[in-house]
Amino acid sequence: MLTIDPGDVVSAETHDAMEGRIRTESDLPSDVLNFPFLNPQNGPIFVRGAEKGDCLAVHIKSIVPRGPQPVGTTCLMREFGGLVGTGDTALLNAPLPERVKKVEVDPITGVRWSDRITLPYQPFIGTIGTSPEIEAISSLHPDYYGGNMDLPDVAPGSVIYLPVHAPGALLYLGDCHAAQGDGELCGFAIEHPTVTTVQVDLIKDWSFRWPRLENERVIMTIGSGRPMEDAARIAYRELVRWMAADYGFEELDAYMLLTQAGRLRVGNMVDPKYSLGASIDKSMLLAQAAG
Amino acid sequence: MLTIDPGDVVSAETHDAMEGRIRTESDLPSDVLNFPFLNPQNGPIFVRGAEKGDCLAVHIKSIVPRGPQPVGTTCLMREFGGLVGTGDTALLNAPLPERVKKVEVDPITGVRWSDRITLPYQPFIGTIGTSPEIEAISSLHPDYYGGNMDLPDVAPGSVIYLPVHAPGALLYLGDCHAAQGDGELCGFAIEHPTVTTVQVDLIKDWSFRWPRLENERVIMTIGSGRPMEDAARIAYRELVRWMAADYGFEELDAYMLLTQAGRLRVGNMVDPKYSLGASIDKSMLLAQAAG
Amino acid sequence: MLTIDPGDVVSAETHDAMEGRIRTESDLPSDVLNFPFLNPQNGPIFVRGAEKGDCLAVHIKSIVPRGPQPVGTTCLMREFGGLVGTGDTALLNAPLPERVKKVEVDPITGVRWSDRITLPYQPFIGTIGTSPEIEAISSLHPDYYGGNMDLPDVAPGSVIYLPVHAPGALLYLGDCHAAQGDGELCGFAIEHPTVTTVQVDLIKDWSFRWPRLENERVIMTIGSGRPMEDAARIAYRELVRWMAADYGFEELDAYMLLTQAGRLRVGNMVDPKYSLGASIDKSMLLAQAAG
Amino acid sequence: MLTIDPGDVVSAETHDAMEGRIRTESDLPSDVLNFPFLNPQNGPIFVRGAEKGDCLAVHIKSIVPRGPQPVGTTCLMREFGGLVGTGDTALLNAPLPERVKKVEVDPITGVRWSDRITLPYQPFIGTIGTSPEIEAISSLHPDYYGGNMDLPDVAPGSVIYLPVHAPGALLYLGDCHAAQGDGELCGFAIEHPTVTTVQVDLIKDWSFRWPRLENERVIMTIGSGRPMEDAARIAYRELVRWMAADYGFEELDAYMLLTQAGRLRVGNMVDPKYSLGASIDKSMLLAQAAG
Repeated sequence: MLTIDPGDVVSAETHDAMEGRIRTESDLPSDVLNFPFLNPQNGPIFVRGAEKGDCLAVHIKSIVPRGPQPVGTTCLMREFGGLVGTGDTALLNAPLPERVKKVEVDPITGVRWSDRITLPYQPFIGTIGTSPEIEAISSLHPDYYGGNMDLPDVAPGSVIYLPVHAPGALLYLGDCHAAQGDGELCGFAIEHPTVTTVQVDLIKDWSFRWPRLENERVIMTIGSGRPMEDAARIAYRELVRWMAADYGFEELDAYMLLTQAGRLRVGNMVDPKYSLGASIDKSMLLAQAAG
Repeated sequence: MLTIDPGDVVSAETHDAMEGRIRTESDLPSDVLNFPFLNPQNGPIFVRGAEKGDCLAVHIKSIVPRGPQPVGTTCLMREFGGLVGTGDTALLNAPLPERVKKVEVDPITGVRWSDRITLPYQPFIGTIGTSPEIEAISSLHPDYYGGNMDLPDVAPGSVIYLPVHAPGALLYLGDCHAAQGDGELCGFAIEHPTVTTVQVDLIKDWSFRWPRLENERVIMTIGSGRPMEDAARIAYRELVRWMAADYGFEELDAYMLLTQAGRLRVGNMVDPKYSLGASIDKSMLLAQAAG
Repeated sequence: MLTIDPGDVVSAETHDAMEGRIRTESDLPSDVLNFPFLNPQNGPIFVRGAEKGDCLAVHIKSIVPRGPQPVGTTCLMREFGGLVGTGDTALLNAPLPERVKKVEVDPITGVRWSDRITLPYQPFIGTIGTSPEIEAISSLHPDYYGGNMDLPDVAPGSVIYLPVHAPGALLYLGDCHAAQGDGELCGFAIEHPTVTTVQVDLIKDWSFRWPRLENERVIMTIGSGRPMEDAARIAYRELVRWMAADYGFEELDAYMLLTQAGRLRVGNMVDPKYSLGASIDKSMLLAQAAG
Repeated sequence: MLTIDPGDVVSAETHDAMEGRIRTESDLPSDVLNFPFLNPQNGPIFVRGAEKGDCLAVHIKSIVPRGPQPVGTTCLMREFGGLVGTGDTALLNAPLPERVKKVEVDPITGVRWSDRITLPYQPFIGTIGTSPEIEAISSLHPDYYGGNMDLPDVAPGSVIYLPVHAPGALLYLGDCHAAQGDGELCGFAIEHPTVTTVQVDLIKDWSFRWPRLENERVIMTIGSGRPMEDAARIAYRELVRWMAADYGFEELDAYMLLTQAGRLRVGNMVDPKYSLGASIDKSMLLAQAAG
């Protein structure tokens, strides 16, 4: 276990979510992947001084691909994904065929999806969280402690705020994506191994229930739940509370303003809980504060 | 009933969703609103030549406010909204207090939310649809025929494609919003009366299950359902099908590409069904076609 | 339209839900069924004196099969059912094969499922409702007005209470089942044509939101919604309210007692809304009243 | 950690779910309960020879109350329960008042709810499970490993089959209820401390995904998930598979038969996942086998 001081910068050599086991497009996911041994994480990282009731502020500095090309992988796995029957939405239909796609990922030229289509390189951290107070959880789950949220806003230039539940916080991260659409529809974004660099600050005595995020443009709260409307409710309620606690809004005013100006981002619609981010432009918070 | 020819331009004087009954901030919604007599619509409009199996292409030309200021209204209504118990999510908690907010709406200077905060004027049509084949439905419902979707993309510059189920299509529209956040959280966007102008084209023999939309930047499919993940599934499956039928993608390729590049917009999370739009940038469709 | 007086007895010759179009086990549902022209109903029946704010008390007297054997039909239809992807839970998996099963139904000897298995004849009315105030709805929907609830408790010996929304109530019924498990899993119970006899009483000035039912043993409230937990919430909240209004319970006491003694019955998990009945034994209501 | 051999009988002195901290009706749950330190369990119990791929058959022999009267407790806790906003269904409504009810529980005379109402003593094990393969989970969760299912069928006379994921199985149990309605509506059944006696058998090389149960009358499969329809789907799919694997049914025949004869029991509609049991009468399985 790595131990750090608040303010330290950490560079993590992350694996892809399949731990590199899918090497070619002819590998079958069902042959090489071994549930629940998926989504390997870097950590835990013990942050000195972190205690229950505090909050980590993780500044995401950079994400760069590492390893031999084609470094990006996506695939169809049986009974996993947003448009198929799954272990939860348990059906009798036959599964889709398995399929693997390997793609070159370059920070400058982008993700080479095909001869015709290239996607911009927009990397983010798929999984980042702190330890729950009394559980040892799978890295596949997103929840109040963060985890496998697969939310593209957790990207360089953002700071994510994670509540501390256990001594030292026990931060973990991994599962970086080179590109992803809203919902991570088939369950596998462009998964790729990276060097991910973060700076970890500690904020004493700031506590809340669900992860929060901030970048130059917005503040965002992240809810995870099923059905999807519950994730949306969690995210928006947390945002109402944040606006009320720190930005001078009365709760029902915040509720009504978000009706006109709130934004929702669907991170994943495939994981054990769906994750959504609710946000509002900082310009409105500044206007309110300036009043 | 207005009868038009394909290609005709129609200007509709729409009411706000409360039919103008909320005149001041001291009106109580429970006093002046009378369910189910809400959300008045303009129509039906009979389009000559429209038959089952065809599709209307409704080009949204312009939306401008009409009537005396303050022309915009939002409010909290009992047991309605995304962060309260409702008639469907039926709970024992006491309802929130009722509240009304009237705001000035100007196409140039925007929506004057408060002394401190002004929102841009971004009008769209909250409710637009065609008749089902054998039902006469409430204007409060969104479904396969369109209806009360409350999706901000249904805005000037877009064309919405609505399948025809009954002779003449029987188009209706209303419920225009001056501004709205994702999800229309409390249930009432900035409701306002308008003059809304659309051009109605008819496309023979083009049929599909759920509404579609196109603007300069994207193609979008719109799904409505509960729980919210079902609305997302509908929207994304329809988009897969559209990409396969008209843009040269194999179905599973479209599924995998949307995983990396699809976008979801939450229209409403308050109506009888939730409405989500799934979209993809036309640049990718053009690249695919050019290959 | 049949017009009756309160207290009249009506015998209806109901069709099966497929209107008798599936005649042999080699008929393909996709060939002979034509959505939305499904689930034919008997009615509307105009009840003299019935007005908004009143309630019909429909006493179910008897249900007997009619027509040539094998009179019972069940089948697998594409994209319909509880364990398959559907038009709402929209997936990319291939549909199940279609399949039809015709069975003999005898009120005494039961439903002859196979050479080995015979099910008891436990008939009930799958669809029964009154008109909404301003809509003309499909008979496939269950909602606050009753409709396609597919709840086995709507059986001979029960009285179902249906709120009146329109002059004359406009009662309809049909879709009788000879046997059905909880949830009507594949979407088709043992559908069969019947002679169904009911007595229709009118209760003036008794109004509530959702259908209620009573038999010798229990009182029951019926909620329809999606996701399924919303149907359960509706049903239980209505039961709390009924116990409070008519049986001397304080609301929170009723809530706590139902925690220990309430029963839930899943009617359907396949229709546009799922329908659940929440009930409590009358013995407890009598004990409470006797106190 | 207790280590036993297959076939051993174990008697556990269980606590109530609040670990006995609610002593009088004037104790406030929010004062004395300390989330996540709730729902204390007995165990883990290491079963010699149990390995991944095996199954425990836990025969429930008896449950008797222990401790001073009134030994039964139920209560209303903030943001927990089936008819209130919760941490997942996150709303802005004010919570219900807290309330505690203590009741006498006697195996013969029953549960003395009030001067007027007495409920039969129908005890069962609310929480019983085995260890996941790589997680240490909270006892509040129900999932594929069993856990906090709150299903009244887990009662004396039943055997519950729990798949083994980790060496020794690591069985745990607790949270016994003296009476409970379907859904455990307010979140707290009649919680009570007990002496619970079980016999633990080991079945080698019998593995499946979700817990199963058997008693004199039925076989049952138990699914846990959100939304509630997913729990129902899991339970019914597992039952289809069990009938196909062990009772001579073709899968689609089992699907169609369960449509006519399957039963659903809602265990809880309040825990992190809802738990439902799907069952079929053994008489039909015997008839099928006798054919």
